This record gives sequence, structure tokens and C-alpha cells, in this order.
Amino acid sequence: MTDPVVSTPITRVLWKEDPGNEFYMKREDLQPFSFGGNKVRIGWEFMRDLTEGGYDAMLIYGDARSNLCRILAGMCAVSGIPARMIATRPGGEREGTDISFNEMITEGFGVPVRTCPADRIADAVDEEMERFRSEGRNPYYIYGNRFGTGREGIAARAYASAYREILAEEKELGIRFDLIAVPYGTGATQGGLIAGAMELRDEDRILGISVSSRTGERARSVLRETVRSYFADRASDGADVPGPERIDERIHLETGRNCGGYGIVDGRVTQAVRDMFLQNSVALAPEYTGKAWRGMCDYLRENGISGKKILFINTGGLPLFFDALGRSRSRG
Amino acid sequence: MTDPVVSTPITRVLWKEDPGNEFYMKREDLQPFSFGGNKVRIGWEFMRDLTEGGYDAMLIYGDARSNLCRILAGMCAVSGIPARMIATRPGGEREGTDISFNEMITEGFGVPVRTCPADRIADAVDEEMERFRSEGRNPYYIYGNRFGTGREGIAARAYASAYREILAEEKELGIRFDLIAVPYGTGATQGGLIAGAMELRDEDRILGISVSSRTGERARSVLRETVRSYFADRASDGADVPGPERIDERIHLETGRNCGGYGIVDGRVTQAVRDMFLQNSVALAPEYTGKAWRGMCDYLRENGISGKKILFINTGGLPLFFDALGRSRSRG
Repeated sequence: MTDPVVSTPITRVLWKEDPGNEFYMKREDLQPFSFGGNKVRIGWEFMRDLTEGGYDAMLIYGDARSNLCRILAGMCAVSGIPARMIATRPGGEREGTDISFNEMITEGFGVPVRTCPADRIADAVDEEMERFRSEGRNPYYIYGNRFGTGREGIAARAYASAYREILAEEKELGIRFDLIAVPYGTGATQGGLIAGAMELRDEDRILGISVSSRTGERARSVLRETVRSYFADRASDGADVPGPERIDERIHLETGRNCGGYGIVDGRVTQAVRDMFLQNSVALAPEYTGKAWRGMCDYLRENGISGKKILFINTGGLPLFFDALGRSRSRG
Repeated sequence: MTDPVVSTPITRVLWKEDPGNEFYMKREDLQPFSFGGNKVRIGWEFMRDLTEGGYDAMLIYGDARSNLCRILAGMCAVSGIPARMIATRPGGEREGTDISFNEMITEGFGVPVRTCPADRIADAVDEEMERFRSEGRNPYYIYGNRFGTGREGIAARAYASAYREILAEEKELGIRFDLIAVPYGTGATQGGLIAGAMELRDEDRILGISVSSRTGERARSVLRETVRSYFADRASDGADVPGPERIDERIHLETGRNCGGYGIVDGRVTQAVRDMFLQNSVALAPEYTGKAWRGMCDYLRENGISGKKILFINTGGLPLFFDALGRSRSRG
């Protein structure tokens, strides 16, 4: 398949709750491939890496509701690459009407989904890789080794390059954003943006709002490794690999606004999703962009930030909006 | 609110079933407002007309699954215009889990939905207009008079102007499309395209595939009136109003591929939606774009058309894709 990534627009959004700041969104949710989102750019980097490395099958891993898995399944289907997925399911075992649209779409693309407890992932990765090999395939595991590390730098390329796009759009719009806020899930998007900003010697203005279960040092170390790997991959081109201190200066991450963990949302997040839709007709995915938007607004208020121009990266996840709408229908 | 309409891309789509033609899509489904679609452009023309006419409330009418109603409800909510909707529900009375996402979103925007049998619409329109007036409002009924006529020319402006956009994109892409296929529902999109082509003295190449229950002369007469009104509205600017014969020459409409009526789809349509998604990761709305795409492909095959460049207007309707996916989940 050909490169599906397009430049997305930056649009103004209304947010009545905070009239003191100006809000803008980078509309990554409008990437044309398979309901869009940041995972279109990230997935495409994995696909390129797979092709360049001469691999011919893909092992995907993620939560059963994962947007990345939906996107990768779609890219593999369109490209004729056989794929399988290992899925964690923290909410418990799979039940008929609780299957997320993302999972249905992933399976619709012909990708078998194997449920796996969180403490068995490394073994499951080994088994599925071996299964591909026994079929004569040379499989690519998206996260690298059995522990899920080794390809952080690949994923980071997506938003390092998007950062360049943002700078060009700022020029075109005649706006300089004071803060760029981004949902932190795997760290690939924020890490990429930080790498892009460092590479282009732009100032320090990126804030991650964690929607993940990772807290404290673990969350930060993933970001650090993502940025480091990005530069290490480029070292052969003469890129300078920044030391951990220089990277750490750039890491700004709010981990206390995750509603208690990945996939968990509270009533304030649900209300924020509703308000965003009513005020702008823009759909947020409760578990990702909804939670991050709510967290960002709380951060701004608690820190007395006003009179600023804020860019929020709308990382998409549209099927999750419809999952939530469907649940509200079954209840009501 | 400000103009939400953007220029949408034209992208190549794969369609293995017919290797003889080259297929492209005008991605109106990527209009950024409220899940996009052709109704963003059409709804915005109604909003402009409402504003210019000094109206301050809106009466919406449509099928309960209507995309236009979702879009207008969103535009009214964002603009602070009170709105109400009269809905027909051919599938029978409303039941809990059968409420479409479009209807949920319409109601979510605070628009009360009143169900009405098809033979009572004119009376219901009178009643709701009178209700607005008794509240001191000056209401705008999107379709004009109580019989739903009088504003065909307003709606047509949307795609007359989109036709200009298509010509510019053809120039940019270095492609000249042999055929432009478009779903025919209300006639506003096809009528607008025909008006645009006539206004710009471009050749005759627009084909409508009806997804509506209208057949024969009734379907054609709506198109004729849409095109005529468009030019009549412009007559004061010195536009020439073409006679019915000149308009009729431009009307190419397939009405026999509607699966038996509005909202009805068959297994071949469902399969086409699946194939499109698998081959391109592009979502079609079964009742609209899915049916029209299937009908267009059948038309091409039956008429032995090959070696052509075909542009399909993807008029969106994304929530209906998720409705269908949700139904397939409930079935198991």
C-alpha cells in the first residue's frame, strides 16, 4: 500500500469552561485511513520498518480496545501481510455485546485475536513468533523483543515528523502555541514530539497527560528511552544522541489525572466528551482524548494558566466514541 | 459559528472486483464537522440562508436515521439556534436498542425529535412552525413550505460549489474523470453537481444512483426543480435559467438499484461495504454510499464500461457504518 498519512488541519475549538485561554486542535482524528488517529502515522512507521527489514508477517500486541491494533490490522490487510494479535483484556473475559468496535474491526480484517493475561505476554509473544516461523514466515513483532522493547525509536519517527508539520502550520496560521498538550498512552506520540522539538532546537513546550496505568518513574523512563532510541537510530547519519539529563529536562508528564488507570473514565471525563461535542461537534474517545482533555483543562486551572494559546493533539480513536454512545443507549 | 466546510481530498481506491476501471473517491466523509459527509456542505447552506433571512429557530425534517438532521442539530447547537425535528420512522415505532447513532446525536444536541407518520408531515410542519411562532420565534423550515418545497436551490448551492472544487482538483491531480457517480437521496447533491457543471459549461458526466424510494418521473422531477431553482435564485445576478429540456439532458439517474426502497439493503450491499473496508479501510454507510457504490459497480458491468476513470462522491454517513457494525455484533 502507499503512504496513507496526510497533513491534518489545526482548528480552533470553543471551550466555554475556560474563556481565559485559546484552544486549538491538531486534527489527527481526520487522518483518512480507517477512522484516523495518531496510530495511522505510528502504524505506518512500523509498516515501513517491516518492509525495509524484509519481514513478511506481523505480530500485534495491545489492549483489546487498542486503536493501534485496528490500524495495523487494516494496513496488513490492505498490504496482504498475515497478522495476529495478542490482546490483554483488563475488564475481564470477552462477552458478546462488550466487544469494542476496534476489536471487531481488527477481527474483520482477518486478524485472529488471542486473549492473554498481562503476566503471560512475553511467553505468548514467543509462542506466536515461533508459530509464524514454523509456517515459513519471518515475523515482525511491533514492539521488538519478547518484553516489548527495542522499537521505541521507530514509533517515535511518526511524531518527530509531525512536529515539523506543526511548525509549518504555525507559520502559515501566524500563531505560536505556548503549550502543546498530548495524551500519553504508550509514549510514542509524546516521545516523538519531544524528539522532533529537540532535533529542530525548538523550545520546551510539550505536556503529556497520561491516560495509561503507568505512573512515576516507569512512565518517564519509557519516554526517555523513546527519545533516546530515536536519536540513536539516527546516529549513523551523524545525529547527536542527547544524554538522559537533556532528555529529562524535556519530559513534562501529568500522571495523576488518569482516573485510576488505563481504560477507566469518570463522570467528569464523560461530561467533557459531551461538552466538546456540543460546543464543537468534535468527537473525543473517552478513554484517550477525553481523559487527556479533561486532565489538561484541570492542569491549566490548577496552575493558574491563562491568556495562552494551547494546542491539543487530537489523537483520534473514533470507534471508542461510538462504543461509549452505544453503551449509553443500552443503559437508557 | 464559522464556515465548517473544507476542501476534501480525492483519493484512489482499490476495487478488485473490477480491475478494468480506475476508481477514485471524493472524500466528503472527511469533512471535519460532526463525522462529516455531504450534509455538512448542504446544512451550512441552510444555516447561511437562515442567518441572511433573519430567522432565529429551525424546524428539521427527515428520517430518524438522517445524516442531515444530525448535522443541522449540531450546527444549531453550536450557533445557539433552537431547533426541533420531525422524524419519519418507516421501520416502525422507536425501540430502545434500535435508535440510530444519528438520532442519538441529534437528541444529544438538545433537539427534540417528534415521530410522525409519512402522511401527516405537512400538518406536523404547520403545528411545529406555529409552536415556534407562539414562542415569539421566527422559524426556518429547511425544506420551505409545508409540502417540503421551495428551498431546493439553497441546498443545490453546496455541490454546485463543490463541482468547482472537483475541477480544480482534477487540474492539480492531472486527471480528468470520465464519470462522476453520486448517491441520490434528496437530490440536493446530484442536483448541485449538475447545476455546477452546467454553470461552468462542463461536459455531461454525472450519474446518480438512487438510494431513495422515489422512482421514475418523481425522482427526476425533484432533480429538475433543484437545478432550475439554483439558476432561478441567481437570475437577479443575470444568470440564464435553463429550460426543462436542457436540464433533462443532464439528468442521468439509476433508480432500479435501491434494493426496494430507502433504508433497505441486501446482502450484496453489505458485502460491498465489507470489501471496501478490507481493501481500502474506507467506511461506507450501507443505506447510502454502500448501496450507491454497489449500484454503480453493477451499472458499469452491465453497460460494459471499462478503461475509465470513475470518481465516486463519498457522501459520508459514518454513524450508520457503526449502526451496522453494532447490529452485526448483537446478532453474534
